Amino acid sequence: MSVFTTVTAEDLGPFLKRYSIGSLLELKGIAAGITNTNYFVTTTHGRYVLTLFENLAADELPFYVNLMAHLADHGIAVAAPIANLADQYVDELNGRPTLLVQCVPGTVVDEPSAAQCFEVGEMLAQMHLAAGSYRGQMQNPRGAAWWNATAPLLFDLMSAADAALLRAELALQAGQDFADLPKGVIHADLFRDNVLMNGDHVGGFIDFYYACNDVLLYDLAITLNDWCVCESGDMDAERARALLLGYQGVRALKVDEIAAWPNILRAAALRFWVSRLYDFYKPAAGEMTFAKDPGHFQRVISAHAERQDFWL
Amino acid sequence: MSVFTTVTAEDLGPFLKRYSIGSLLELKGIAAGITNTNYFVTTTHGRYVLTLFENLAADELPFYVNLMAHLADHGIAVAAPIANLADQYVDELNGRPTLLVQCVPGTVVDEPSAAQCFEVGEMLAQMHLAAGSYRGQMQNPRGAAWWNATAPLLFDLMSAADAALLRAELALQAGQDFADLPKGVIHADLFRDNVLMNGDHVGGFIDFYYACNDVLLYDLAITLNDWCVCESGDMDAERARALLLGYQGVRALKVDEIAAWPNILRAAALRFWVSRLYDFYKPAAGEMTFAKDPGHFQRVISAHAERQDFWL
Repeated sequence: MSVFTTVTAEDLGPFLKRYSIGSLLELKGIAAGITNTNYFVTTTHGRYVLTLFENLAADELPFYVNLMAHLADHGIAVAAPIANLADQYVDELNGRPTLLVQCVPGTVVDEPSAAQCFEVGEMLAQMHLAAGSYRGQMQNPRGAAWWNATAPLLFDLMSAADAALLRAELALQAGQDFADLPKGVIHADLFRDNVLMNGDHVGGFIDFYYACNDVLLYDLAITLNDWCVCESGDMDAERARALLLGYQGVRALKVDEIAAWPNILRAAALRFWVSRLYDFYKPAAGEMTFAKDPGHFQRVISAHAERQDFWL
Repeated sequence: MSVFTTVTAEDLGPFLKRYSIGSLLELKGIAAGITNTNYFVTTTHGRYVLTLFENLAADELPFYVNLMAHLADHGIAVAAPIANLADQYVDELNGRPTLLVQCVPGTVVDEPSAAQCFEVGEMLAQMHLAAGSYRGQMQNPRGAAWWNATAPLLFDLMSAADAALLRAELALQAGQDFADLPKGVIHADLFRDNVLMNGDHVGGFIDFYYACNDVLLYDLAITLNDWCVCESGDMDAERARALLLGYQGVRALKVDEIAAWPNILRAAALRFWVSRLYDFYKPAAGEMTFAKDPGHFQRVISAHAERQDFWL
């Protein structure tokens, strides 16, 4: 559940007075999400999502929030932040920094079609282009430095066989050099549950709180690894081709990106293998969320390692 | 008709490459509007309105365009401008400065209900609040200086009786001092045809090209003079009360605003009486638009002059 900080209609009255979005009609907690508290806020003007940040401090938010505003401003399907009367996106309620955003239409799709993958690829490429003029800077908090520092905490907790595979994968990635590939602002977590689909169209990308400056191709790999994956861990060729076709219709990959593709797909899987291993073996004290299966991304890596065609 | 500059799908292809809003599906000229060229542009991402400015130069646009973006950013129902990949709202096409905006839902309402007047009043007040943090500055191009300079060009063309009435009205307004009333950014032209209503809700305020810094109450008077008027020129009491109730629910009028109300209603009518007289007697060479009846606002002034209750 995702309501960690309770908000009542009485709390919200004075809060909404600091905005120009009308008066409250309905307030409803949102069950999805595991990090922040989210409410649907319906006013006389429309429907919004109110987020109370449970971990991020107000001074950590501008990169993400201004990015969302920048992308919305460029017509990218994202939840547009709403500024208050003091012209600030970040406000405060019940001791938490807050953000109000426009509701975007659509629902999370569990079993995406190839047509939906095409649209996600297309919007991702448009997002990469639109973010080209965004000035904010944020290092990737889950990059190679992070996984190289985190994995040693896990080796002893894993089976010897899995630990060996993880070491081998880290070694393989240590030998890669993606530094010269096209960079920009990436979402870095564009899984199915971070996209609302409105039929076959992208209603909105959400949850930008892993966004950072990194290699664009890595973002595409993270997205493909989730949107196009089968239960086996292998990719579904039809969905993968559709997602890449959608992406490349907007931004064609360069020769060195095509060369890097097989290994960056594994890097994108490694990042989530390590974070899931960490959540599995080192759950935070009092954490209510149940850890997701780390084995999933181990299987994705195996499947990528066995493939010779990468739909490019 | 409002397509002065023709745009083809072939023109639009390279233009849309400078944006991140998908590729063109449909292009359709918009018949409404008498100053600029407007097209509906439907892309794979959504529906937009493309304006080609026929009179305003690119360097005159930032005040209006940034205001629209500011208001959209604060949740006010306006057509949000879309920035291009160079992070500019104003682009160029076929020799004209251009603006792309999101389509807002709704249609122009010819015979508004009291409920709709309430919503327009409410949104207008919210707009006045939200614009409080807007930094742009623009003098009212149709203020007292303008009408005092324009009326002398018209006296000799009018009937002696009407000219006498106009002189008297100018004299009455010359005796008023609205300078200490609350000021801010006003729309200054919020007639029915500049609001798209989505049922009883405001879908969007449009056409901000008379927006300027002026007295807030004057904006309310302009709006009421159109939204609540009867054919006789008198105001419909029910609609007028509803519009004022909607407005004051958000921003209660101050004592000096209430005192100024009867005369500012006449000032708001005078501005349009003079501009319609000018368009009637001094049509621009080659002007295709047929001038609107100047007598309408003369009757509005008479009706205001006869009333003692002003629904406040």
